[in-house]
Amino acid sequence: MSLSPSSKINILKQPSQLAWLEQAIANLDTILLDHSHCERKAAGVALNLMFRYPSYAPLVRKLTAIAQEELEHFEQVNQWLDRRGIPLAPLNSPPYGARLKAQIRHQEADRLLDSLLISALIEARSHERLGLLGESCPEPELAKFYRSLTASEARHYGTYWVLADTYFEREIVQQRLDELAEIESEILSSLHPEPRIHS
Amino acid sequence: MSLSPSSKINILKQPSQLAWLEQAIANLDTILLDHSHCERKAAGVALNLMFRYPSYAPLVRKLTAIAQEELEHFEQVNQWLDRRGIPLAPLNSPPYGARLKAQIRHQEADRLLDSLLISALIEARSHERLGLLGESCPEPELAKFYRSLTASEARHYGTYWVLADTYFEREIVQQRLDELAEIESEILSSLHPEPRIHS
Repeated sequence: MSLSPSSKINILKQPSQLAWLEQAIANLDTILLDHSHCERKAAGVALNLMFRYPSYAPLVRKLTAIAQEELEHFEQVNQWLDRRGIPLAPLNSPPYGARLKAQIRHQEADRLLDSLLISALIEARSHERLGLLGESCPEPELAKFYRSLTASEARHYGTYWVLADTYFEREIVQQRLDELAEIESEILSSLHPEPRIHS
Repeated sequence: MSLSPSSKINILKQPSQLAWLEQAIANLDTILLDHSHCERKAAGVALNLMFRYPSYAPLVRKLTAIAQEELEHFEQVNQWLDRRGIPLAPLNSPPYGARLKAQIRHQEADRLLDSLLISALIEARSHERLGLLGESCPEPELAKFYRSLTASEARHYGTYWVLADTYFEREIVQQRLDELAEIESEILSSLHPEPRIHS
């Protein structure tokens, strides 16, 4: 069963399944720990793009802001871990990130376009799923925290889309986004057995 | 000629030479552009350590704060570039960073100790040199900007030292810091021909 259209995000082809939400709610501590890793990774992705395209002023400016926000969220999630007595620990990544990254073409400017669109999709999915946790998490304070994050996740996927639109023709952006969005939804169509933000 | 002891930083073996300050003041635009790269790289170094040691809670907490501050400075330096009409552009790095990095031993926990101490030394040198620019830069507004950065650079090298002291015996830290500080000063003993923060 897929979740209601109210939680559907514009650029995502398919909404998350109810099974994901049930898995997440049954494993809130693991989800929090994975969320911490996700925020650090998101900051890393933004910074890596700034290293790869150091002269692209709009990209550098907008991704600096994103990296700062991701680090702020990382810090906030780590405070939640601390309050719940969950030690920082490594966690196996689900296949989601690696499978999306494998779609990035090696030749420029394809590489830039794909990198921006995949980040847009990951942010859009995070926005959708944190929003679902914000609605359905049984712990009111934690639910409130998730709701507090959703606005900036939405801004982030907008920013990645705007950057793609800055450097590429809109038609090319839309066509590639369609292809990647199909793959993104396909990856999540079978639930990964380990509870993760992107399981 | 070396600069006066008033600008000498505790952990540095030798103060910067007057020749560096003269070179920097004669090339303020290039120094600003290099400074932008330095701030981005400093954020990258902090983030890389957070990726390599994700369970080291004090390290993760303190380096999150450092990465955030470096990104803030990166943004501020980029605003200066923008105001002066200097486009973001790649710039060859001086040998300083690579030669220091080559000192990092590969085996843990040596690798962690060396990484922390080299970051401490780089931050200490940045603190010293931005302080010199804050005193001697002929443009008052830019000098003021440099002075505004020195306090946090000082905090950063303190933080890296404290982290080394958190994870290692003080005597081992001191001995290795002495060795690396000798090398750091030796690298800067002959001026790199291209004007850089660490030329």
